[in-house]
Amino acid sequence: MLLEMICTGEEVLSGQIVDTNAAWFADTMLNLGIELQQRITVGDRMPDLMRVFLERSQHADVILVNGGLGPTSDDLSAEAMAHAAGVPLVENQQWRAHLLDWFTRRGRVMPASNFKQCFLPATAILVDNPVGSAPGFRIKLNRAWLFFTPGVPVEFKHMVTEQFVPFVQDAFKNGQATRLHKFLTFGHGESALADQISQLSAPAGITVGYRPSAPHVEIKVFARGATAIASMENFLDLLRITLGTALVSERYASVAEEVHQLLLTSGHTLAMAESCTGGMLASQLIEYSGSSAYLHQSLVTYANAAKTAVLGVSPAILENHGAVSIETVIAMAKGVRELLDSDYALATSGIAGPDGGSVDKPVGTVAIALCDREQCWVQVVSLGQRSRTMIRVMSCAVALDMLRRKLLLSSPLVSYPFIPAVATYMEQTH
Amino acid sequence: MLLEMICTGEEVLSGQIVDTNAAWFADTMLNLGIELQQRITVGDRMPDLMRVFLERSQHADVILVNGGLGPTSDDLSAEAMAHAAGVPLVENQQWRAHLLDWFTRRGRVMPASNFKQCFLPATAILVDNPVGSAPGFRIKLNRAWLFFTPGVPVEFKHMVTEQFVPFVQDAFKNGQATRLHKFLTFGHGESALADQISQLSAPAGITVGYRPSAPHVEIKVFARGATAIASMENFLDLLRITLGTALVSERYASVAEEVHQLLLTSGHTLAMAESCTGGMLASQLIEYSGSSAYLHQSLVTYANAAKTAVLGVSPAILENHGAVSIETVIAMAKGVRELLDSDYALATSGIAGPDGGSVDKPVGTVAIALCDREQCWVQVVSLGQRSRTMIRVMSCAVALDMLRRKLLLSSPLVSYPFIPAVATYMEQTH
Repeated sequence: MLLEMICTGEEVLSGQIVDTNAAWFADTMLNLGIELQQRITVGDRMPDLMRVFLERSQHADVILVNGGLGPTSDDLSAEAMAHAAGVPLVENQQWRAHLLDWFTRRGRVMPASNFKQCFLPATAILVDNPVGSAPGFRIKLNRAWLFFTPGVPVEFKHMVTEQFVPFVQDAFKNGQATRLHKFLTFGHGESALADQISQLSAPAGITVGYRPSAPHVEIKVFARGATAIASMENFLDLLRITLGTALVSERYASVAEEVHQLLLTSGHTLAMAESCTGGMLASQLIEYSGSSAYLHQSLVTYANAAKTAVLGVSPAILENHGAVSIETVIAMAKGVRELLDSDYALATSGIAGPDGGSVDKPVGTVAIALCDREQCWVQVVSLGQRSRTMIRVMSCAVALDMLRRKLLLSSPLVSYPFIPAVATYMEQTH
Repeated sequence: MLLEMICTGEEVLSGQIVDTNAAWFADTMLNLGIELQQRITVGDRMPDLMRVFLERSQHADVILVNGGLGPTSDDLSAEAMAHAAGVPLVENQQWRAHLLDWFTRRGRVMPASNFKQCFLPATAILVDNPVGSAPGFRIKLNRAWLFFTPGVPVEFKHMVTEQFVPFVQDAFKNGQATRLHKFLTFGHGESALADQISQLSAPAGITVGYRPSAPHVEIKVFARGATAIASMENFLDLLRITLGTALVSERYASVAEEVHQLLLTSGHTLAMAESCTGGMLASQLIEYSGSSAYLHQSLVTYANAAKTAVLGVSPAILENHGAVSIETVIAMAKGVRELLDSDYALATSGIAGPDGGSVDKPVGTVAIALCDREQCWVQVVSLGQRSRTMIRVMSCAVALDMLRRKLLLSSPLVSYPFIPAVATYMEQTH
């Protein structure tokens, strides 16, 4: 069974948007143990679309087509498919009724352009889209089933998960059993992790893959076949030992989500004072529903005057040690923790660049503090040679990893080979 | 002249990494007025690589091939190309000498795996890579020039900019002149915009494309040929009138960047109090270097107690009107503005969901205030039926658009057809 993908749309071909649908789709299929053979990306041009549909239908068994089902004049997928199959476009009465009903229930008149979306190739089978106005459809041509999906990511993912996966699993049902396990790591480089892990010998049928997704490197362990699956647990244990402090989650895709869950479970509260991370830390936690249970406040005190007025950082500390210093982040963390007597406080202050660096404190120097009621832990890390965004992203991950380790009763300070610490500091405050 | 791209590598095909090289390349070409016809992504499998090189060499004039030039056993591009062209691989003495010299100058011994990188198809022409160990090369097969580049992004971009662009500009020198102009819109649906614009008749040779990229819809106007370019300005003026208040930028890719620039230019200062947007507003502005010039602080007062302790919102207001109310966001904005006497303040408070909604204030209800020294403007919008992330993203865009309009001396309150306002309110405070 050969699976291919065709991505349509000038905006994808021309790089106006990065094709995250394609990456997500291939990854989703791989998690099901199905490998994609090839992907073709074409623009919204009738002859190109027709040619690609016709040509690939002679080679693949299943083709996932993404995009071009919208209401505008550059959405040509249904029409191109009809031409390629040599059948007319006909209005799908079921979808027309569905759309009219949708607009009526919202008290809105259906725009003329949406009627176009009801026209499908005559021999196509409608595929429901409960979250958007573009219907999916599938159609047989030559040896292939072509399965058409909308480009809007939320609609695409819904249709793949709910409709395409059962369809393709049926088509691929004679495949081998597979199992996938993921480790989320932080603070170690991809090559260093791969060098260490390649020295373990993976049992036959087990492969290890690496996916750098800043600030993390995800490690995927994939077992194909019953023998490989049976030997997987032992190998995972070996990997856990090898990864050591690099391993930050086996449940979630980010250290932020891991911390969110640990705070929810523990019932502890958190306050934050952010300077260079500037709201990113708060935003990463607030992304998860239920964060109001533990998050008191996060004060983005960007100006020095704000650090004094809002957090009570003494002007003398700022003057003597500078905004990016162990003393300042401790004062920020203490100040924000005391406002509502939170259990924990995090504070960041650093030079995100590209301007503002000095010889003593070059761009990428970031001071990060964690305080509870008794102690404060600080590390000053050196994140130079990264972009402004990446300096902020890495700073957030260090801060959250310190809190994660504390919540798991480990020492908050740990060494990250990929992120050199310029200084670390701990003090007993009570 | 037909330009295509072939991307190689399991990690790209399988979605282990998003193919940012491909997006960057197509965008770079489009900015030169050269349209990519098609992109094929294949894994590191010898028969697939050979088939694709042979097949596409019969259709395209220039093919940019990316990846597969590294030192490891799954880097097969040069070998596959040699097979496809029916020529042997031969060691390129120039590159061998270059690599040996590179390692010698660094006092290192060249690893055996790097010698493999010196072997190129016999008829290939070496393309220099001053930033890495993989040489590029180009080779003629059938009607096409195939141009091979390394997958490492920094090496790839360097080679494209320094070597491929001059090569392809020469190859395409008889092509048509093109011009691209982009409008960034907010608050209007893609279909509604397309319906309006389709009623204008675009001059011959001018096409209009739409790219939804939440919270914005970008409109791209593309002119091909001298006649179309000559009639472009008039058509752009017509579009500006048609777009009206939907148009938020012609310079930048987000309303945040537009506001950042307006604040930098005007010298005004800003303070923010964020509840449901939770640091996202601050983070979007701090993304741009120089934001410290105007941003005093952004206080993410997530808990009600924080709104009182940090911003001085009276408990009576919170009790009588609720956290999501006109009264509360005005008190938040006034409170945060007065801390450092900022010129402007923004405040948000809403129900981001999926929990926390009520009959009176369903999920998606968000109150947004803008205050200056004399006045406050508030709108309460209804963003229901969107995800938690999207409710926060749209709230940020409404807040920033209010400030953008104020900085341009327009009324901050405007109606967004895509975002129904439940209430709007204005008060004179001094």
